[in-house]
Amino acid sequence: MAEMLIGKGKPTRRAYGFDEISLVPGSRTMDVELCDVSFELSGYRFAFPIIASAMDSVVDCQSAAVMGKLGGLGVLNLQGLQTRYDNPAEALAEVAHCDNSSFVEVMQKLYAQPVKESLVSKRIEEIKQQGVVAAASVTPNLASKYGPLAVEAGCGILFVQSTVTGIEHRSASGGNELNLTKFCQTIGIPVVVGNCVTYDTSLQLLATGVAGILVGVGPGAACTSRSVLGIGVPMATAIADCALACNHYERKTGHTAQVIADGGMVVAGDICKALACGADAVMVGSPLARALEAPGGGFHWGMATPSPVLPRGTRIRVGTSGTLEQILLGPAHSDDGTQNLVGAIKTSMATLGASTLKEMQEVEVVLAPSILTEGKVFQKAQHLGMGR
Amino acid sequence: MAEMLIGKGKPTRRAYGFDEISLVPGSRTMDVELCDVSFELSGYRFAFPIIASAMDSVVDCQSAAVMGKLGGLGVLNLQGLQTRYDNPAEALAEVAHCDNSSFVEVMQKLYAQPVKESLVSKRIEEIKQQGVVAAASVTPNLASKYGPLAVEAGCGILFVQSTVTGIEHRSASGGNELNLTKFCQTIGIPVVVGNCVTYDTSLQLLATGVAGILVGVGPGAACTSRSVLGIGVPMATAIADCALACNHYERKTGHTAQVIADGGMVVAGDICKALACGADAVMVGSPLARALEAPGGGFHWGMATPSPVLPRGTRIRVGTSGTLEQILLGPAHSDDGTQNLVGAIKTSMATLGASTLKEMQEVEVVLAPSILTEGKVFQKAQHLGMGR
Amino acid sequence: MAEMLIGKGKPTRRAYGFDEISLVPGSRTMDVELCDVSFELSGYRFAFPIIASAMDSVVDCQSAAVMGKLGGLGVLNLQGLQTRYDNPAEALAEVAHCDNSSFVEVMQKLYAQPVKESLVSKRIEEIKQQGVVAAASVTPNLASKYGPLAVEAGCGILFVQSTVTGIEHRSASGGNELNLTKFCQTIGIPVVVGNCVTYDTSLQLLATGVAGILVGVGPGAACTSRSVLGIGVPMATAIADCALACNHYERKTGHTAQVIADGGMVVAGDICKALACGADAVMVGSPLARALEAPGGGFHWGMATPSPVLPRGTRIRVGTSGTLEQILLGPAHSDDGTQNLVGAIKTSMATLGASTLKEMQEVEVVLAPSILTEGKVFQKAQHLGMGR
Amino acid sequence: MAEMLIGKGKPTRRAYGFDEISLVPGSRTMDVELCDVSFELSGYRFAFPIIASAMDSVVDCQSAAVMGKLGGLGVLNLQGLQTRYDNPAEALAEVAHCDNSSFVEVMQKLYAQPVKESLVSKRIEEIKQQGVVAAASVTPNLASKYGPLAVEAGCGILFVQSTVTGIEHRSASGGNELNLTKFCQTIGIPVVVGNCVTYDTSLQLLATGVAGILVGVGPGAACTSRSVLGIGVPMATAIADCALACNHYERKTGHTAQVIADGGMVVAGDICKALACGADAVMVGSPLARALEAPGGGFHWGMATPSPVLPRGTRIRVGTSGTLEQILLGPAHSDDGTQNLVGAIKTSMATLGASTLKEMQEVEVVLAPSILTEGKVFQKAQHLGMGR
Repeated sequence: MAEMLIGKGKPTRRAYGFDEISLVPGSRTMDVELCDVSFELSGYRFAFPIIASAMDSVVDCQSAAVMGKLGGLGVLNLQGLQTRYDNPAEALAEVAHCDNSSFVEVMQKLYAQPVKESLVSKRIEEIKQQGVVAAASVTPNLASKYGPLAVEAGCGILFVQSTVTGIEHRSASGGNELNLTKFCQTIGIPVVVGNCVTYDTSLQLLATGVAGILVGVGPGAACTSRSVLGIGVPMATAIADCALACNHYERKTGHTAQVIADGGMVVAGDICKALACGADAVMVGSPLARALEAPGGGFHWGMATPSPVLPRGTRIRVGTSGTLEQILLGPAHSDDGTQNLVGAIKTSMATLGASTLKEMQEVEVVLAPSILTEGKVFQKAQHLGMGR
Repeated sequence: MAEMLIGKGKPTRRAYGFDEISLVPGSRTMDVELCDVSFELSGYRFAFPIIASAMDSVVDCQSAAVMGKLGGLGVLNLQGLQTRYDNPAEALAEVAHCDNSSFVEVMQKLYAQPVKESLVSKRIEEIKQQGVVAAASVTPNLASKYGPLAVEAGCGILFVQSTVTGIEHRSASGGNELNLTKFCQTIGIPVVVGNCVTYDTSLQLLATGVAGILVGVGPGAACTSRSVLGIGVPMATAIADCALACNHYERKTGHTAQVIADGGMVVAGDICKALACGADAVMVGSPLARALEAPGGGFHWGMATPSPVLPRGTRIRVGTSGTLEQILLGPAHSDDGTQNLVGAIKTSMATLGASTLKEMQEVEVVLAPSILTEGKVFQKAQHLGMGR
Repeated sequence: MAEMLIGKGKPTRRAYGFDEISLVPGSRTMDVELCDVSFELSGYRFAFPIIASAMDSVVDCQSAAVMGKLGGLGVLNLQGLQTRYDNPAEALAEVAHCDNSSFVEVMQKLYAQPVKESLVSKRIEEIKQQGVVAAASVTPNLASKYGPLAVEAGCGILFVQSTVTGIEHRSASGGNELNLTKFCQTIGIPVVVGNCVTYDTSLQLLATGVAGILVGVGPGAACTSRSVLGIGVPMATAIADCALACNHYERKTGHTAQVIADGGMVVAGDICKALACGADAVMVGSPLARALEAPGGGFHWGMATPSPVLPRGTRIRVGTSGTLEQILLGPAHSDDGTQNLVGAIKTSMATLGASTLKEMQEVEVVLAPSILTEGKVFQKAQHLGMGR
Repeated sequence: MAEMLIGKGKPTRRAYGFDEISLVPGSRTMDVELCDVSFELSGYRFAFPIIASAMDSVVDCQSAAVMGKLGGLGVLNLQGLQTRYDNPAEALAEVAHCDNSSFVEVMQKLYAQPVKESLVSKRIEEIKQQGVVAAASVTPNLASKYGPLAVEAGCGILFVQSTVTGIEHRSASGGNELNLTKFCQTIGIPVVVGNCVTYDTSLQLLATGVAGILVGVGPGAACTSRSVLGIGVPMATAIADCALACNHYERKTGHTAQVIADGGMVVAGDICKALACGADAVMVGSPLARALEAPGGGFHWGMATPSPVLPRGTRIRVGTSGTLEQILLGPAHSDDGTQNLVGAIKTSMATLGASTLKEMQEVEVVLAPSILTEGKVFQKAQHLGMGR
């Protein structure tokens, strides 16, 4: 590949997002029934490769249970509203009903309430009691504190997650860095870590013994990292880079780990593209925030929003379009890729001749930017009733 | 060409759409009268290379007859409303009059009615009685069922068409795959098959003995394959790839087959570009859905819409702008490329110095994206009365 | 340069428009007073390199006279309304006052009136009487008919112009092609010919002995060639290609000819870019259609509009912003590049350190697309009062 | 890098803007407290690398004092309203209260008033009296006149600034060119010069002995150089080119000079990107024009606007969002990157594992254009209440 430069002396390369790629059908097709979309993570097998994001607008104990019963996985944020409030419904209602101008301050106020350790245990138990795998998310700096509590309460899979998680974190106090290798060895349940976006970091994280890595920085619908911090890597490239690291790691060590694309998938087609770029599964927020069961009540917001000094998530109104079951398994009553996500994955695979997720990772991908052209923007504008 | 990568280990290439290319005039021009736009398909000769899509909003027996009398071809969908209802007018009216929110469900209901074999024969006969070639479309899985009925009723050309049709389809039941080679040998009339988008698949389909291939996945105005399935290849690249396969096939075997670009052509300029990229003819939907004779009554919708579990077409209001004759042969009373499509092809060829469609396939094409710039979008916005 | 392909077997290259490039200042600047923008065409010297387009909305005898007195050149269309009507004011008013839906038909009706040979002579004389160079435009097929009349009436420079003019035109009747070499030798005044967009065609046209070539197909504000015919080449690339041909021709033969960029220049910055890409002068329509003296009365329309069967120009409302003198020589009272065009050229040259137009052709040009980003479009949308 | 061409014989290269790049996190993160964002300019040390632009809407004596007390630097324009009017408040109010159509003429009138030498001295003294470093800006042609006055009044750092400043300026009168080397040697205080955008010009300017160079032509929010003059270089490329020149100069001579990115930074993420491209500090206008202390009163305008013959800046309404302290140091109550700019720089550095600004200049940058896609534009349009 020809070297590219930002300017003299500053090499760079092009990274691609979902809107810039498309999947290419070939000579073989198959019936949808022949497509296997099941996904395994450290011995847990799921009917489909869609995980609900550890976001307060998406997962509470009830929606986690529904996700599990449908065959998927919902991850509870152990440092969100669910563990700060005995009755999170009030806090959630406050987020949903405030106006745009006061939203950030409302969030800052609500998340100033401390996490209660008792609620950490209680929420995990509530999920377990529904007969599904309990999965929970903690930040790296508090993993050693809340992780063991969660395991004790019956947590099955732990997500150690922050905006960016690498192999080394320098702390101002000098003391509380997480030793991920040691943590994985002692915590007793599979650990998924993230987020990362590069080949090198993926390799280093995999070497600590994690069961999977979360790939994605900056692309989420409710994320403003890119405008606030200038940071972000378009998903198609990030997934391909990290998936290659995972393949190389497996070839070298014999250990299998999962690449989970996290963020930036708005419609089913985006999920199909993530899988084709090399993801084993996807973690999605906004598409599931539209569910009747979603705690956000028709709203979705980023988990970096409540920062007291530098909020960098936003709230978007997503509306409510159906049950989790309708959104995941259909039947769809809309034609825009927001319903029957699993059916769409299967249909895409059938159309592309891929019978397994592994085969889906090998389909041809072309660069086909869906750029806005003059014609399109005004056709659509008129369709939406803008203008005369 | 320098190798391009989505990310490490994931090679890709750039594919181009009509909005990204433009045709380059050279040193020779000619009078429009010297341009021959006639098109031949397995012995049938047409006055111009425009085929009306097998879509319920575009072709019924009456509009197929008008297409034929004008010198073109209209293809009737044998699995659409025309063969499900004795009186399709009522169903068509229901589609046209429902609102956007109920549209998908109305379609799902209307297409749940079974196809009547008697109507398959009847519709073909109705077209034949008008003295024109009857052409009809069936899906691969039902080609063996409805194809012979159509032939018996007098069908002249059969289109075997689905979103993606390759040389191999694996069926869940294991039994009903179409053997295309055998089908072409026995059906007794020319078969056109599609849709495909790659060189390899084109070669394989051509080897079965088809008279032509339909090129295009995902670009249509009423198609949402790209957002639902992530699948699609921009048309300019797809046409060039498949046209090369067709040339190579002809050079190797001596057999001629036609490349028919299907979908994504909104204005006459798009049709000219399709021909310059290598298409022998084009199949268009939305531009003809604007005709007074079009059964859609000012609406146009995709044929994947009525899927009961995963609808992936949409309905767009195209309005009614004139007769089929005015749209195809002019005179145009608009300046936007939606009227006198045949005249536009001839004028483009005359301006480019191409006296035949074969010469048109050799004109120079440059990459010239009609990207939206700041200036343009707001000029046009003001023109449309958006804003103050 | 790496080879680019539309698709397999179809080579292409990237062409660039004004919105995709920008000029780079270097180490030297100068005072505006030191910049010489004078332009010579076959012995005629003009104070600045801006020519008013031969369009009915831009040039009549009066505005041609004002252009000449200011130091520029206006070209009268000898086949437009001015030579079809003794009193063109009425026809012009009809164009200005019709509504968008009837505009094409009004144009078709008005231009159905035949050209009167007596008016051809009369209009030229009217311009001459004002003491300025009379320049006029004819189409190639009628150049032999109207050209000599114009010369006899005192025309100083003849523009032989159509959408695309090459070295060879094949006529259906077989007889009336223009032999450009012979025409240039016998007509007795300098001939400018166009439009063309490629190196090869430029070389061939120059070899006929023309004084200049018009470069530009498809970019004009009132031109819809690209959507109707699929034809057009972005201006920056077209100018650079044709300018190189002109340089090569001059080096080989010792004859100097001028490259005149025609169309697609909306603001002064576009004119500066045209010069930097290699143009010796520019021909502009819409920027001058805003003048009080412009016959269009605040409207601008393409000269391909009145085609009886395939209109391919449109009418845009440009408004009236000042006198020709204000638009060309300032002072500007707007900050958007639409006033004081000559002052802007000089200031651009001064800032870039170019003291002559020849030096301006050597300044550095970078690819810097002014793509619409999310931020920009909505900032501007709010500025324009779109949305809440 | 493969050679790129505008057209035959016209080489070019691609230049990138902030909207086209993004920063890539790696394996190391750190706590925000460990990030040092201090910045030194010729012995003056500042707590953060943000300088307020020498624009009348941004800096007066009072806001310069606040900037200094917060740890930054504000630069007063010595040829703006502050030195033309004893009481600039009235003139500022007139700019803020005029309407868009009269704005340019109001500006032309207000800036026609001559600069008073007594006010040059007085304003500098007013800043000094607040106990902060006084910094002021003059144009090259008047640097010899106002520079010594400013120094005498106690000015600490002098900015010699115009749209484009190179090493050589040819003057029409032949006499008053600034000899920058001599000026730097004799003026007695550090000189920052600009603006420039290329490697060669940077090297030449640095050789004169300046303390820093301002990088940026054309990108500012209130700048219309690109549409009026066709001139401008996207910031990411300009910064990288000039930063390399600065590094080479330092390596060769041992002298350190600062690269200050000037213009086009709208949100904190843009500032982070400027630093990652190689800037030592940034000069920003519109983000600080939103401060309560900003003299623009909620408006921001370019300093090239009042040109009597060729205005090329515009006025934008930015509103007022908080104090300078809130905008610079937080806490932020918005999530869009417009508040807590210093906190955002630190958080970006912490996330990217850069503990100093030098390390920040080494982070990985990818090309990741935030192009407008169909989906995005209409999501956002609906969010803003455009359309139904």
